[in-house]
Amino acid sequence: MSAFGAGTSKRAWLRPAFGLLVLAASVLWWIGVQPASARAPVEPITQFLLAVVAILLVCHLFGALLRRLGQPAVLGEIIGGLVLGPSVFGALAPTARTWLFPQHILSALDTAAQLGLIVFLFLLGCELRLSAIRRKRVVIGTVVGGTALPFVAGVSVALLAGPAMAGATGGATTHVLFIGLALSITALPVLARILVDLRIDRTDVGVIALTSAAVGDGITWVVLALITALAGASDSSQLVPRLGLSVAFVLVMVLCVRPALVVLTKRITSEQSLIAALVIGAVACAALGQVIGLHPMIAAFLFGTLVPRNETMARASEHLQGFTITILLPLFFAGVGLNTSLGLIGANLRGWLLFLVVLAAAMAGKIIGAGGGARLAGVPRRPALELGTLMNCRGITELVVASIGLKAGLINTYGFTVLVLVAVITSAMAGIMMRRFERAPAGAQADPDDRPGQAA
Amino acid sequence: MSAFGAGTSKRAWLRPAFGLLVLAASVLWWIGVQPASARAPVEPITQFLLAVVAILLVCHLFGALLRRLGQPAVLGEIIGGLVLGPSVFGALAPTARTWLFPQHILSALDTAAQLGLIVFLFLLGCELRLSAIRRKRVVIGTVVGGTALPFVAGVSVALLAGPAMAGATGGATTHVLFIGLALSITALPVLARILVDLRIDRTDVGVIALTSAAVGDGITWVVLALITALAGASDSSQLVPRLGLSVAFVLVMVLCVRPALVVLTKRITSEQSLIAALVIGAVACAALGQVIGLHPMIAAFLFGTLVPRNETMARASEHLQGFTITILLPLFFAGVGLNTSLGLIGANLRGWLLFLVVLAAAMAGKIIGAGGGARLAGVPRRPALELGTLMNCRGITELVVASIGLKAGLINTYGFTVLVLVAVITSAMAGIMMRRFERAPAGAQADPDDRPGQAA
Repeated sequence: MSAFGAGTSKRAWLRPAFGLLVLAASVLWWIGVQPASARAPVEPITQFLLAVVAILLVCHLFGALLRRLGQPAVLGEIIGGLVLGPSVFGALAPTARTWLFPQHILSALDTAAQLGLIVFLFLLGCELRLSAIRRKRVVIGTVVGGTALPFVAGVSVALLAGPAMAGATGGATTHVLFIGLALSITALPVLARILVDLRIDRTDVGVIALTSAAVGDGITWVVLALITALAGASDSSQLVPRLGLSVAFVLVMVLCVRPALVVLTKRITSEQSLIAALVIGAVACAALGQVIGLHPMIAAFLFGTLVPRNETMARASEHLQGFTITILLPLFFAGVGLNTSLGLIGANLRGWLLFLVVLAAAMAGKIIGAGGGARLAGVPRRPALELGTLMNCRGITELVVASIGLKAGLINTYGFTVLVLVAVITSAMAGIMMRRFERAPAGAQADPDDRPGQAA
Repeated sequence: MSAFGAGTSKRAWLRPAFGLLVLAASVLWWIGVQPASARAPVEPITQFLLAVVAILLVCHLFGALLRRLGQPAVLGEIIGGLVLGPSVFGALAPTARTWLFPQHILSALDTAAQLGLIVFLFLLGCELRLSAIRRKRVVIGTVVGGTALPFVAGVSVALLAGPAMAGATGGATTHVLFIGLALSITALPVLARILVDLRIDRTDVGVIALTSAAVGDGITWVVLALITALAGASDSSQLVPRLGLSVAFVLVMVLCVRPALVVLTKRITSEQSLIAALVIGAVACAALGQVIGLHPMIAAFLFGTLVPRNETMARASEHLQGFTITILLPLFFAGVGLNTSLGLIGANLRGWLLFLVVLAAAMAGKIIGAGGGARLAGVPRRPALELGTLMNCRGITELVVASIGLKAGLINTYGFTVLVLVAVITSAMAGIMMRRFERAPAGAQADPDDRPGQAA
């Protein structure tokens, strides 16, 4: 926008701003003028709407701010969610926070966020296309190195830390495995956003990083399914039928639902019917997964991987993304923020130290593991380092996995907070360090939102 | 699809169908094999997902069925909602219904449906473009005749019926006015769908009908705002500041928010940020409206009318429509169905008679009023009759208005059921009668879903 345009819009803002002030003043007058007896308590639906407005406003403002700073908007939205939590908003204005987010509103928001996550993981599954992988050797090296080393590092840290991050249920073994898994995550959607922002999504390094992250994502969900099944089985006699049922579920999905989907997507040419069919399928899989002991998000992701691709499908999933990513994901971020308590980390020296050790293990494990794996597969030194840096981005996938772990009792609130911080810091670092590597001028990035095909 | 194609897909369905049977059987086996003590009660989120799946499945199946019969899919979705209610599903399987829709799930569904309605009415507002009206004389004749006569008929019927349909609060005057308003509605979204189905949306009659319905929609929401303000003010001293505040709200919206939106839509070029800004605006207006006594749906509709149109805007609203129309609106239909009790109508002769009188008043008032108004404005006899028939379609707008009336205590459950049935019957008749007029072969209709620009 030219200087002239900016000047015009500056003047154009004056009248609306004045008007909104008048409106706010009259609302305050109205509330003040009413007798206290007539001042009805806020209705539940109004309360819900106010909470939604507050969450969307804060998350998207931070998103816009971080985009200005050359970071992906989704990182800002995650930080916005943290700001709404007890550490910032709760510390600054505890009464306002309790008024804005009472318990019954929190559970309503959580339900909406769960529905959003199911659709989001379904969409992530849709994007996973293992058949499209090229340069298999390099991808295998990056994935194996970038998964195994941080997993081992995470398991070691969890063994050293003892019960400091462990949750109430699930036993020591599942907790240790879970921390290992949590450190070996790479976030496909945030990574994709960073690559697009830096305009390196079609370079060699970009394509290998994206593919490796996608394969790693698939592995993550399979391992997480195993860990939650292990944790959920209260005695060992339940474990075998539980795992057996999950395997049967996967088999039926691959052998029966997949061909059914092929027929269905060919038959349904109307976009709205296709959206309906896909959402019904994803939600039904999630519910069925929940019933047989497979996590609903994992079941929805699995369903997504089975959906065949065609043009109608692509448009339908694009339409689903609009609402899911802009409206429902911020509700999930707010839920994450409300469960995160930075005070727990600063409480004592041990808390700080453990957090730094986890962060170091996560970063070193991922950068050395993924970079070293790529190096062994024949990638030169500099691009191998770039690959390691990129794969270190954990973003939203880490948040989903940490939330699942918290709900399943595999980690406590302290462990949850540590993982959330690790996710935010590693994601921010991936962008910042890559920008240094590329020495790209700050103004050169493409508008990230112009490619709706990239989830988040 | 060719006969060969159908044969292939018939065989292709066999394997999935068999597999799903096996899956269902193993789930049943799993539930049966677990000891009763270990059979945990279904978690709230699973319960919610199951309810969502059931609603989407039934609504979209009926939608597909009615589309086969040459009716708009949205009519089938409304009927699907009624089927889930106490009259059909509740009567056939009361235990299953209580299990599938317990009270806490109903309120969660209602919250999601309210959010969906807010976005839907915002989108409806976006489609209203008074400046684009041509043939003003005919439109004015159709609107005035098609609004005034059914309004008078509705008021007369309500006066004759006495308290039979009246709600607990609001007094006799507001109830009578509300019934008058309810009969004078034309449903813009369903009408648009019927016109597209019959391929007459670009003919003279089609354009006049659409424009008249849009203008009528605008009038409906203004009058409804007045009636609910009248009903909400417990004593007359509250009425003046309440109305004054609503007028101030509208003025601020038109004078300040509108220019702000013009600047905003020019500045925001990314689609996702625009979606976020629009939803935040619509939900904020709804919450603010609720606080000052203006109904949230009306405030969201008003906000929609103020949004300037450009290409990014059009794409953003299209993206919002996908999720809103296919996922959230069926939840609203299910809510309507759960509040509808056909048994109340069949309970006695008086109930039947009153329903038939209301139906006759609604249809006669609308067809004669709108057709006569068009005739007086110079439209020939046959197209005037077609216009009257089209304007008689009440569809989803009637459901929204009736739900608002039920919640505000302006009508009772019997009155609600009568209005829901009037909406379904008049909408079905509009399609069936127009098909006769046009003598269009059943196979000739366009696929209605291929035009995502048409709301619902």
